[in-house]
Amino acid sequence: MSAPQRLSKPYLVRTGIDEILAELAEGDAVPSERELAVRFAVSRETVRQALHELLVEGRIERRGRGTVVAQPKLVQPLSLRSYTEGAAERGRVPGRMLVTWDDVTASSELAEALAIGDGEAVIHLERVLLADGKRIGLESTYLPRRRFAGLAESFDPSTSLYAAIRAAGVTFGTAVERIETVLPTPREAALLETTTAMPMLSLNRRTVDSAGTPIELVRALFRGDRVAFEATLT
Amino acid sequence: MSAPQRLSKPYLVRTGIDEILAELAEGDAVPSERELAVRFAVSRETVRQALHELLVEGRIERRGRGTVVAQPKLVQPLSLRSYTEGAAERGRVPGRMLVTWDDVTASSELAEALAIGDGEAVIHLERVLLADGKRIGLESTYLPRRRFAGLAESFDPSTSLYAAIRAAGVTFGTAVERIETVLPTPREAALLETTTAMPMLSLNRRTVDSAGTPIELVRALFRGDRVAFEATLT
Repeated sequence: MSAPQRLSKPYLVRTGIDEILAELAEGDAVPSERELAVRFAVSRETVRQALHELLVEGRIERRGRGTVVAQPKLVQPLSLRSYTEGAAERGRVPGRMLVTWDDVTASSELAEALAIGDGEAVIHLERVLLADGKRIGLESTYLPRRRFAGLAESFDPSTSLYAAIRAAGVTFGTAVERIETVLPTPREAALLETTTAMPMLSLNRRTVDSAGTPIELVRALFRGDRVAFEATLT
Repeated sequence: MSAPQRLSKPYLVRTGIDEILAELAEGDAVPSERELAVRFAVSRETVRQALHELLVEGRIERRGRGTVVAQPKLVQPLSLRSYTEGAAERGRVPGRMLVTWDDVTASSELAEALAIGDGEAVIHLERVLLADGKRIGLESTYLPRRRFAGLAESFDPSTSLYAAIRAAGVTFGTAVERIETVLPTPREAALLETTTAMPMLSLNRRTVDSAGTPIELVRALFRGDRVAFEATLT
């Protein structure tokens, strides 16, 4: 069978821009929409669509009024290790910026997930995750306050939460992670310095300790243009 | 610290619509944009944003001129099993629709990934993946033709490729999967009966056999509103 898409304008433009990008280095300026439209003899709309795809894929990024070749995505291994460990392994400097740290009252859904009573206190920690100083994700963690009261007193939110949980004598057992793609709310987009049109990778994780008792419930959003996940299956 | 987003209009509207949806069953009509704007005393733009989020999340879907509560997402386990096995385990009827089946010439990149010579023949199989008759993904598989010549003669593309590979005496070893979010090209959107604005989960997989010899390279796109991935980490 033939592959007719090879002759379509969007395909030719995308392939052509890919070839141009392959010759450029990180941070180099990308030719403008107008230049590209002239070069490929197509409408600016066709070029705009291709550039938007590349922006969402994290191949290019806006810088001031121009567009440049982006840094490669941070590839996060799917594992029971923390964000900090995963980022450091890939040669990026991890960081965290505290957004919210308060006690909330467990809804029946949250109480069930954490195996605590309805209305019990839960620590809610919300942090922006950074790689080399760039905002790449927004992570909300929910911990049963009764079990982690000590942590609520002493934890430094700019450090690894998993290291602090382990230091409290807890052994991680199993986590079930669900990965989806979502659009950010206006607030989430603002915290991640992007727009509500940028697809996110959403990661929902429930972790239990070696005895099967829930440790945490996590909802993390990662900018789709800056992060990929990787899993090794055997 | 307080959580100021709780008072924002987008947050209140989204929470309000979530409550309405919680009372509805799959297939039920969702109140119109206009009705919701009146009920929450906000602009139609604010409601539109919330409905667009819900559409991308697969909570609601367009049906004719209206909007209804969607079927829950198909949750695909990240594992070395085939799409067929994963879907069937979740109680969905899997199906595949052939789009492309041809021989291509290995580019240097493809040749390296499959450990074959530059320019050697590669079988390219592209199929739309169905669950209960609905289009949920588009999968391109590349197999070294020399090794799988028999399969090229006898394979029924509406059946499980993994079952056919196993029947050819090959034992799956390890796969490395990369998960990202991307926007579909116009062609991909058309094949998946959606728009180029619908975020996709993209899955790139390279599988080797028990001896470490590459079996396949796969690029799959899954509609973000219809599919989630799940991983169990220990």
